[in-house]
Amino acid sequence: MTETQTNATREPVSKERLRLWLRFLKASRAIEAQLRENLRVEFASTLPRFDVMAALCRFEDGLKMSQLSGVLKVSNGNVTGIVDRLAEDGMIVRVPVPGDRRASLVRMTNRGREEFATQAAAHETWINEMLIDFSPSEANDLAARLEQLDANLQEKTP
Amino acid sequence: MTETQTNATREPVSKERLRLWLRFLKASRAIEAQLRENLRVEFASTLPRFDVMAALCRFEDGLKMSQLSGVLKVSNGNVTGIVDRLAEDGMIVRVPVPGDRRASLVRMTNRGREEFATQAAAHETWINEMLIDFSPSEANDLAARLEQLDANLQEKTP
Repeated sequence: MTETQTNATREPVSKERLRLWLRFLKASRAIEAQLRENLRVEFASTLPRFDVMAALCRFEDGLKMSQLSGVLKVSNGNVTGIVDRLAEDGMIVRVPVPGDRRASLVRMTNRGREEFATQAAAHETWINEMLIDFSPSEANDLAARLEQLDANLQEKTP
Repeated sequence: MTETQTNATREPVSKERLRLWLRFLKASRAIEAQLRENLRVEFASTLPRFDVMAALCRFEDGLKMSQLSGVLKVSNGNVTGIVDRLAEDGMIVRVPVPGDRRASLVRMTNRGREEFATQAAAHETWINEMLIDFSPSEANDLAARLEQLDANLQEKTP
């Protein structure tokens, strides 16, 4: 933090950084909008639904609803509706928790895993096309800098 | 588009680009969260309220509600509540449209302009600190690339 503050004192407030933020926000919204559109057209799906499946695929043994919400950092209410629809569609199952009659785990079915694998591969291809102007090594460097930026922000707000 | 497709054919799908997107999204959310927190703590305000004031400051003569929603690209309903509060707080006024008894324009007051100038200066300082690790010329280059990325996406979805 000391280094950052020294830099801030040395350099005047930069219009370029403000412009970068505005462009950054616009690009991130445009990419997200394109992903939403592609998921809708190609898979009749949504980004929140994709995110729920991605989270569940990372936990083989399943997750309680509260854990799933924690992983997604969204309210339980939103997730419940998505999970209900995924269960209806056979993508996930609810399984009882041994020793806790009121709790259940949410877990991907084999069909759900296959469907998500297809969607995730398409998602990766879409991203690859949208970010094609960044070479892999440029992408790598920028990702590392954004990771650092994020770490700096986390440090400031514990 | 031909060039992009040629590149896409030449290069395999890159994990680095997927990682860049995930980092990009995470950083943009972290910056937005910090801006929301700062606006709340420093000015008891919100990001949508800040955005409405920013839009109105760009149009000296004021905007109809429908025009304001168009500029902000959000639903009229959300904007109405924000505009009501800004009017209560003396930041904006509603003025009649000559020749159209049912329409009114929303316009910043002098007090609103002063308040927004203060908030915008703080906002610029916050962004400057969060993006301090990007030099002005790096920020400039990256902003230009993101602008190009955005233009490519717009071209694909007319």
